[in-house]
Amino acid sequence: MFMPVGSQATVKSLASDDLRDIGCEILLSNAYHLYLRPGVEVIREAGGLHRFMSWDRAILTDSGGFQVFSLAPLRRIDDEGVMFRSHIDGSAHHLTPEKSIEIQEGLGADIIMALDDVPAGGADATRLAEAVERTHRWAERCLSAQRRADQLLFAIVQGGSDITLRRLSVRALSAMDFPGYAVGGLSVGEPKDVMYSVLRETVPLLPVLRPRYLMGVGSPEDIVEAIWCGVDMFDCVLPTRVARNGAIYTRDGRRSIRQASFKTDWGPVDSECDCYTCRTFSAAYVHHLFKCEELLAYRLATIHNLRFMQRLVDDIREAIVADSLAAFRGEFLRRYRTTDEAVRLGQKRAHEGGRGRVARGATEPIDRCV
Amino acid sequence: MFMPVGSQATVKSLASDDLRDIGCEILLSNAYHLYLRPGVEVIREAGGLHRFMSWDRAILTDSGGFQVFSLAPLRRIDDEGVMFRSHIDGSAHHLTPEKSIEIQEGLGADIIMALDDVPAGGADATRLAEAVERTHRWAERCLSAQRRADQLLFAIVQGGSDITLRRLSVRALSAMDFPGYAVGGLSVGEPKDVMYSVLRETVPLLPVLRPRYLMGVGSPEDIVEAIWCGVDMFDCVLPTRVARNGAIYTRDGRRSIRQASFKTDWGPVDSECDCYTCRTFSAAYVHHLFKCEELLAYRLATIHNLRFMQRLVDDIREAIVADSLAAFRGEFLRRYRTTDEAVRLGQKRAHEGGRGRVARGATEPIDRCV
Repeated sequence: MFMPVGSQATVKSLASDDLRDIGCEILLSNAYHLYLRPGVEVIREAGGLHRFMSWDRAILTDSGGFQVFSLAPLRRIDDEGVMFRSHIDGSAHHLTPEKSIEIQEGLGADIIMALDDVPAGGADATRLAEAVERTHRWAERCLSAQRRADQLLFAIVQGGSDITLRRLSVRALSAMDFPGYAVGGLSVGEPKDVMYSVLRETVPLLPVLRPRYLMGVGSPEDIVEAIWCGVDMFDCVLPTRVARNGAIYTRDGRRSIRQASFKTDWGPVDSECDCYTCRTFSAAYVHHLFKCEELLAYRLATIHNLRFMQRLVDDIREAIVADSLAAFRGEFLRRYRTTDEAVRLGQKRAHEGGRGRVARGATEPIDRCV
Repeated sequence: MFMPVGSQATVKSLASDDLRDIGCEILLSNAYHLYLRPGVEVIREAGGLHRFMSWDRAILTDSGGFQVFSLAPLRRIDDEGVMFRSHIDGSAHHLTPEKSIEIQEGLGADIIMALDDVPAGGADATRLAEAVERTHRWAERCLSAQRRADQLLFAIVQGGSDITLRRLSVRALSAMDFPGYAVGGLSVGEPKDVMYSVLRETVPLLPVLRPRYLMGVGSPEDIVEAIWCGVDMFDCVLPTRVARNGAIYTRDGRRSIRQASFKTDWGPVDSECDCYTCRTFSAAYVHHLFKCEELLAYRLATIHNLRFMQRLVDDIREAIVADSLAAFRGEFLRRYRTTDEAVRLGQKRAHEGGRGRVARGATEPIDRCV
C-alpha cells in the first residue's frame, strides 16, 4: 500500500473525498506538525484525527522524530529525548518516547510509530551506531508507554547503509515483538543501488507475518524494487510535491505538463489513467492551468499522481496473487524512464522533508504550498 | 442569477463539478484573459470554451473592454478601438468592437458582451459623455460584426453617476434592440447610495422583457438592493476573492474564519448552509487549514461563499414568485451586518480587477492565486 502524506491533516490541495475517489485506504499524517498546530488537545476534542479531517479510512502517524531532526532549528538530543524549537514560532519543546506516544494516542491514528533517533545522511559510524542503540532503547520505552490497545505501534529499523548495523537493529527490534516494522534512514541522499542493497539484505530478516514499511520512499521504480525485496507499505511526498510542479506520472516515466507540446493536446494527461483528472479534462486544459498558476492545477495533478501510485500498488498486488511479480517488474522497469540520478539528487537537496529524506538542520517548513 | 467569475477558464480553486454541485447555472469568463492565454485558436480547436473547461452549462464572456482599461499598461483609445500591451508579456494588441466579437465568437460563450469605453472612476463630465457616445457607436459596430446566430449579444449602458447620461445611454441602446442589457461603470468607488440611486433611476427604463445585468456587483446586500431595482443578473469576484482571504458569508454578515474563536468550533462554518464544506467539515478544520495556508482552505471557503450567493438568488427568485420580495428584503437587510464602508473602499483600492471596479492603469495581474 502507498500512503499519501497529509502532514497537516490534509493531503495538499485535496479533500478527503478526493482521496476516497482515488482508492486510497490509508494516509500518513504527522505527530510533529499536528502537535505544533492545531495542537493535540484540539484534535482530541474533535474526536480524533479521523473526525477532524472527515476521513473514515485508516491513518498512520509518524512519531515526530524525523521531523524534529529535519525541520526544527536548535535541537539537542540525549538519551532522555530531543529538545527542539518549533519551526513555526520558535517555541521550545521536549520530545521523548513517552511524549510521542502520548501525542499519537491523542491524535488517534490506527498505526503509530515509535520515536527513533534519525542520524543525518552521511553520518559517521559512531553516530550511526549511537542512533541505532538509542532507537532500540526508545522503542522499548514506547512499548511501555502505550496505553491504548486499539492502535498498532510499529518499530523503526535504523543503521544507515551499514548492513551489520541494520541486521543488529532488525534482531533487537524483532525480539520486542512489534505488530509491524518500518525501515527508516533510507533515501537520505545515498545512491539508489545502495538503498536497494540495504533492502535486499535487511527486509527478508524481518518477521514474516508482520507488515514491513519503508519510510519516505519513493519514486515508482523504488516502490517496484522495494516490493520485490519484500516491502509492504510506503509513504512519500514525491507524487504530491512533483504534481504541484507540473510533473505527471505515466507508465513511460514522468513528464512535465508545462511543456509546450501539451498546449493543444486534447487527450488526457495519461491515456492509461482512470482518475478524475484524466476522465474529465484534457492535457491542454491542465497545461493552461499550470501556465496561469491557477489553484485548480495543483489539485488536478495531485489527483492524477496519487491515482497513478494507487494503481501501481494495486497492479503489483494482483501480480503477487497471480505469482507473476517477476514479469510485472521486468516489464515495468523496461518501460518506465526513470528520472536522471543527478536531477533526482539535486531535487532532493532543493527540497526539505519527507521521511527518509536527508535529515538536516534546515529551518524552512517543508510542507508549504508550492 | 449570480455568475461566478472564471476569467482564465476556471473559477479560482474550483473544478467544473464543484460549480455544478453548488447549483451554478452560468459562469462568467473573460475575452481579454483567454485571448492572451491560451489564445482563441487553442480554445476554438478544443471545440469552444465549454469543452475546454468541461462545463456543460451556460457561459457569458465579457468583451475585454473593462480589462484593457483596468489591467493593461500603455493603452491608447480612439474611435477605432484600443491599443494596449499585455499585462503578461508586454506584447502589443489592438482591440476593436469587431475584434472583440471575433474573439468572443471563437470562444463560443452563450452570452457575449459588446465592447464598451470604460471611463475611470471619478472621470469628468466630458470624458463621461465621450465614453457614452463611443460606447453607443461601438455597440452598433458589434451588432454588425456578429456572425454567429447562437450567441446573445448584450449591450452595456454607461454614464457614470450622471443620471442624464444614463438615461441617454438607455434610450440609445434600447433603440438598437439588443437581446439583453448590462449596466456598467458602477461600483467603481462611488458611495453605495449613489450606485443604488443610479440603479433606481436607470434600470426601470430598460426594455421590460430583456434580461438586465449589473456588471461587477457585488456584495450580498448590493444584490438584494439591485434586484429590488429590477436587475436580473450579476457577476462579481468578491465572494471568491474574499473566500481566499478566509472571509465567510453568512446571513448575519461576513466573518473571518481565521479568528481564534473558530479554533474549536465543531459546527459548520455556517449553520444554515447546505454546501459541501458545511456538510463535511467543521469550522475548526477550515480554520486550521487557513492557519496552515493549506491549498484546500481556498477551495472549501470558495465553495461555501458561492453556494451562499446561489442560495441568496434562489431565495430571492422564490420571494419574487411568491410576491414577498419586500418582506424578504426587509428581513435580509435587518439581519445582514454589512462590511464597514471605509473598510470596503479600502479593500476595493487594495485589489484590482473585476467588472465594475475602478478602472486604473494598474499593471499587476488581478487574478493571480492568493
